[in-house]
Amino acid sequence: MLSEFGLINRYFKRPAGRSDVVVSVGDDGAVIEPPVGYQLVQTMDTMVETVHFLPDVAPFDLGYKLLAVNLSDLAAMGAKPAWALLSLTLPDVQSEWLEAFSNGLFYLADQHRVAIVGGDTCRGPRSLSMQLTGLVPKGQYLTRAGAGPGDSIFLSGTIGDAGLALAQLLSGEGAPSELLRPLLRPVPRVELGLGIRDLASAAIDISDGLAADLGHLLDASRVGAEIDLQKMPLSDAVRERVTELRDWSLPLSSGDDYELCFTLPDEKEGQMIESLAGVNVPVTKVGKIKPGQGINWLGLAHGWKLSAGGFDHFPEPP
Amino acid sequence: MLSEFGLINRYFKRPAGRSDVVVSVGDDGAVIEPPVGYQLVQTMDTMVETVHFLPDVAPFDLGYKLLAVNLSDLAAMGAKPAWALLSLTLPDVQSEWLEAFSNGLFYLADQHRVAIVGGDTCRGPRSLSMQLTGLVPKGQYLTRAGAGPGDSIFLSGTIGDAGLALAQLLSGEGAPSELLRPLLRPVPRVELGLGIRDLASAAIDISDGLAADLGHLLDASRVGAEIDLQKMPLSDAVRERVTELRDWSLPLSSGDDYELCFTLPDEKEGQMIESLAGVNVPVTKVGKIKPGQGINWLGLAHGWKLSAGGFDHFPEPP
Repeated sequence: MLSEFGLINRYFKRPAGRSDVVVSVGDDGAVIEPPVGYQLVQTMDTMVETVHFLPDVAPFDLGYKLLAVNLSDLAAMGAKPAWALLSLTLPDVQSEWLEAFSNGLFYLADQHRVAIVGGDTCRGPRSLSMQLTGLVPKGQYLTRAGAGPGDSIFLSGTIGDAGLALAQLLSGEGAPSELLRPLLRPVPRVELGLGIRDLASAAIDISDGLAADLGHLLDASRVGAEIDLQKMPLSDAVRERVTELRDWSLPLSSGDDYELCFTLPDEKEGQMIESLAGVNVPVTKVGKIKPGQGINWLGLAHGWKLSAGGFDHFPEPP
Repeated sequence: MLSEFGLINRYFKRPAGRSDVVVSVGDDGAVIEPPVGYQLVQTMDTMVETVHFLPDVAPFDLGYKLLAVNLSDLAAMGAKPAWALLSLTLPDVQSEWLEAFSNGLFYLADQHRVAIVGGDTCRGPRSLSMQLTGLVPKGQYLTRAGAGPGDSIFLSGTIGDAGLALAQLLSGEGAPSELLRPLLRPVPRVELGLGIRDLASAAIDISDGLAADLGHLLDASRVGAEIDLQKMPLSDAVRERVTELRDWSLPLSSGDDYELCFTLPDEKEGQMIESLAGVNVPVTKVGKIKPGQGINWLGLAHGWKLSAGGFDHFPEPP
């Protein structure tokens, strides 16, 4: 068993690999030298046991996902990830658990050149917080506001896969590994965010379900949207489930997708395709921004259900 | 009852009051424009119910203290506070609680011109994380390393008061309000940190007890120290308790002091006094840095106890 101090040093103090980290883990704070001409983008996410992850999740996957959900937020802002702080609350210290957790974290951190520069550890019910800072050339950040009537609406990847995997895990059916992957190791769309930041009019990452998150984008942009359900990018497994149940809830509301939803004026579509030539992420045009407010879902077959609530930790009472 | 979205907007979305905050609460991330010529100092602290605070603590005090402990870390680095992110995990949403919590947080944030720029809320066992970023002119940050043999060791304020207050609260005795204040609303020594950053050779904030935290400073600086117990700055109440029990544990190891311990070459003492003329915090010289390692405690009366363990969430087994 290691002390708090030993724990941080052993598992989380690794060479930063970034010349802009002046003082890293081990002092009262980290010292960072931000580059001139850039703005900082800051995000923070917490994952609580039984709320955001099952108690038996593999610690490697948990470390991976804690960073992934933060990277996804930066992707939606068009920022390049840089420095992270980590706060770990754990009921006890198990070397094997910590080693696997830190390996999962650094596996993804190394891919994106993220340096873990500091944080905190304490004892308590298992809960993990990460704060991530990224960089964007001055003024080039994306926000949820800025979508204008006539803009096309795009989605990356497919949606609903993580929700289906979770439902299958919880039902005890077990889920095939290709379905578990989006739930346990979502791929944050960082390169996509960088590729569209000069072109898109608005963007958001889909963490609480498309219906809810697109709703946030529309509210921030003060516009409405028309979405064609028939164009929704779905995996075969999710499409099958939707058809079987005649219910769109799974892809629209289950959450945990970590795909990007963004809007683009039509005249920039050619530039976007060019800009994304080297980015290995499919994007699908699913609808149009309209004046007004709310989402008009097109192509809903007669008798099919369309549930459109997103995940909310503190829902309003009915 | 408010939704997650409504909750953030209602209690934590206040005008930033800083022109360097480009995008604040309400998007996937905050956008910040850091000033040229400065380095960032980043810190993060988590407070867990029953570990860091009692379940019946006043929410105003909790909001205050969450920021205070982070400010204390920045003070020890000589940084000027700037932007914070907040992650709130709560078992339920109570408007009164949230209002008082946010009032306590902003009470201190406004004093130090800290903008709350983003964060996260989720449901779970009560736990609060804050990440705070500050600014320091390039190269002027303080660290734990840098203390050299011959330097004098200084302490701000008095130590042991929070520990005594906590002991009295837990014993059910009740504590007088002048004793509770250091526990519930510690005053972070931000101005002191700014005043000594060009002069001190090393600094640390005392959160886990003087013995442990001075130990960290000595380890980082690869030196030892001689501390004169008779010079220890104590309140009357703590001095009484130490004398009564013939035991120095309370001021040396109880933690939660949030005072600064720093070292200074003697030839800079005059400059320090001048620099701190406008700063309303007493500083006391308590000892000297020595070659070697460890702390040599001077002035321990025969038969008195000196316990020197600091607070550690995950202590090594004996």
